[in-house]
Amino acid sequence: MPVSLEKPIRGFPDKEFSERTTNAQTLMAANDVAGMLLMSEQDVRYFTGFHTLFWQSPTRPWFLFVPATGKPVAIIPEIGAELMRQTWIEDIRTWGAPNPEDDGISLLIDLLKPFAKEREKIGLMKGHETKLQMPLSDWERLNTSLQGLKIVDVTGIVQGLRMVKSKAEIQKLKYICAIGSAAFEAVPEFAHIGIPLEEVFREFRLSAISHGADDAPYLVGAAGQGGYSNVISPPTQRPLQHGDIMMLDTGCTWDGYFCDFDRNWSIEHATEDSKRAYDVLWRATQTGIEAAKPGNTCLDLFECIAAVLAEMDQSGGDIGRLGHGLGMQLTEQPSLASFDATELKENMVITIEPSLSYGDGLMMVHEENIVVRPDGAELLSSRAPVDLPMLI
Amino acid sequence: MPVSLEKPIRGFPDKEFSERTTNAQTLMAANDVAGMLLMSEQDVRYFTGFHTLFWQSPTRPWFLFVPATGKPVAIIPEIGAELMRQTWIEDIRTWGAPNPEDDGISLLIDLLKPFAKEREKIGLMKGHETKLQMPLSDWERLNTSLQGLKIVDVTGIVQGLRMVKSKAEIQKLKYICAIGSAAFEAVPEFAHIGIPLEEVFREFRLSAISHGADDAPYLVGAAGQGGYSNVISPPTQRPLQHGDIMMLDTGCTWDGYFCDFDRNWSIEHATEDSKRAYDVLWRATQTGIEAAKPGNTCLDLFECIAAVLAEMDQSGGDIGRLGHGLGMQLTEQPSLASFDATELKENMVITIEPSLSYGDGLMMVHEENIVVRPDGAELLSSRAPVDLPMLI
Repeated sequence: MPVSLEKPIRGFPDKEFSERTTNAQTLMAANDVAGMLLMSEQDVRYFTGFHTLFWQSPTRPWFLFVPATGKPVAIIPEIGAELMRQTWIEDIRTWGAPNPEDDGISLLIDLLKPFAKEREKIGLMKGHETKLQMPLSDWERLNTSLQGLKIVDVTGIVQGLRMVKSKAEIQKLKYICAIGSAAFEAVPEFAHIGIPLEEVFREFRLSAISHGADDAPYLVGAAGQGGYSNVISPPTQRPLQHGDIMMLDTGCTWDGYFCDFDRNWSIEHATEDSKRAYDVLWRATQTGIEAAKPGNTCLDLFECIAAVLAEMDQSGGDIGRLGHGLGMQLTEQPSLASFDATELKENMVITIEPSLSYGDGLMMVHEENIVVRPDGAELLSSRAPVDLPMLI
Repeated sequence: MPVSLEKPIRGFPDKEFSERTTNAQTLMAANDVAGMLLMSEQDVRYFTGFHTLFWQSPTRPWFLFVPATGKPVAIIPEIGAELMRQTWIEDIRTWGAPNPEDDGISLLIDLLKPFAKEREKIGLMKGHETKLQMPLSDWERLNTSLQGLKIVDVTGIVQGLRMVKSKAEIQKLKYICAIGSAAFEAVPEFAHIGIPLEEVFREFRLSAISHGADDAPYLVGAAGQGGYSNVISPPTQRPLQHGDIMMLDTGCTWDGYFCDFDRNWSIEHATEDSKRAYDVLWRATQTGIEAAKPGNTCLDLFECIAAVLAEMDQSGGDIGRLGHGLGMQLTEQPSLASFDATELKENMVITIEPSLSYGDGLMMVHEENIVVRPDGAELLSSRAPVDLPMLI
């Protein structure tokens, strides 16, 4: 029972990667950066197309160097060489990993030595929402060996590029969002009184994969009388009860791209409070969708969504962020938050994700996925029903 | 169709976490370490029981401080507070994340200031198979703000503890390995000529989850005429053909614990070379299983497995590692490799994973999961058939 939307082609033509690289190099030149050293699965994949679940093994580091001109250089464990050779990358330098004495460090030193000597700037992603994807002791060793290496932060360059999606990326996101929508539509088939939440999760995953998802790696949710109190829990074995409000929030994947949205249901009965919270959240989401036009900022969206939430908000104003970027990661830049003045651009893909606290320690979340088009938002997820749906 | 093995209880009693913490504190005292700052999902979960898929969102850092005495202290985003309160942890310090200006850093500074003042040693995992799970710029800021902070590497302490599994951990590993075995046994039901490898992957995931896995996050494999040439690929849409050798390698999870093993099949026909490779690998695996006794080292296992592989090895001696630890991560310490002299201890859970290159750029892998018992290995995975099985 795959979704009716036509399945996109897996992968990307080489042109996509050369364009991404050229765009990065233009920004690097403007910032006087002689090369960028990247280490995360998504950043390496963005510039190469190197796509493997093997990154789930945390044993080995992987490196990609984007020079000022020409193709990126891969410095990777030998086990990845065969797969990397299938990408557009030509310069592939490998070592027999794992090797605790030298896990790619001497290869990195060889590569970076000329830049250190010339005191040219090398970019590294060291800012917000990044991690140093190698052992800290290896990083210290690299810097000790390369006296004079000038490291600058290129978080903004890479995140800025990745925020705006290509046509092919949007096709993949649209496809996985359609699959997520179909999986949510099937929930009434298996969720009802007496079914443990754990089994609802299992059936949801089966449904998502049967509808065409490669996997449903992210699935959280909750169910409780009159509402739920946290939104990041794994499932319990507690059976669904009359009067529960249930929420499921999923990140399903197709060809390395995520959807990320949630749905709420009442089990046979909903309190007035929960119906009201749902209504406020639905309208807050709608306001966000309508405001998602090129030129408006993330802060603008945050403020207009927050204004609707204020009708019922009990959080004392600390409502966190109300949406985020979406793509190769479940959550990406930008943030719909008071601190983020990023201007929305055509082809950004974001989530609109308001949340409310209400009653005695309860909370509710809503989420939709959209792509920013010249005239405004195009929904990628099927819009949630206007009233809290009931499972009977 | 869940597996017949009795399902273990989810989570752990608090006693498990207090014992892990006490064991760590004993090692910390012996190394004059006044506290450990941990940041990875698995290390935080190991000492707290804090278990959520929300870590898949890379936006926020999470911190756990293990002091010299008493319970660990959680320094985490507010969104995790409710779930952390359900664990044995009492001191939970939160901030409204994400916050690019201060993502937990001032809370960390407050916590660590007294240690910096007294010039006491604070442990951080900065060695092999680790990453710095926070932005590098935040790490630099922390060190600038805490002049005199003495950081020492505690990779060995934490990895050393995690290598030896508790009874409850082994029950979870045994359960997920039984599920993985059942999923592999079902492969002949859906894999045959004309089915695209992508569909085999989809059916395998559905089978694993139907058999009781929470998810099958890791699934790689390949199929090709007479053999395959890389073992970390996502699936292609190429239909299975007469004469293919197909391999599937999976990490399925249950309650946060992984199995990690693979299986090979021929499609209607197998070359003599591939049958011979299979036989050598089966016997190499068997040798490793038989040598997995307390007192033998990882190096011992590596050497006796490699001796069997030498019958057919075409890799020029660079055969990498031949197995690894298994638990909360798909791959953990130790490594069955020439560089690892770790002594096997009772209740270590490891994979035996020999690989061979043969023919014209082909390779084959075998893998089984075992727990080290006083008298030798206990198989957690069902042993692969002694001859290369054929799908017809």
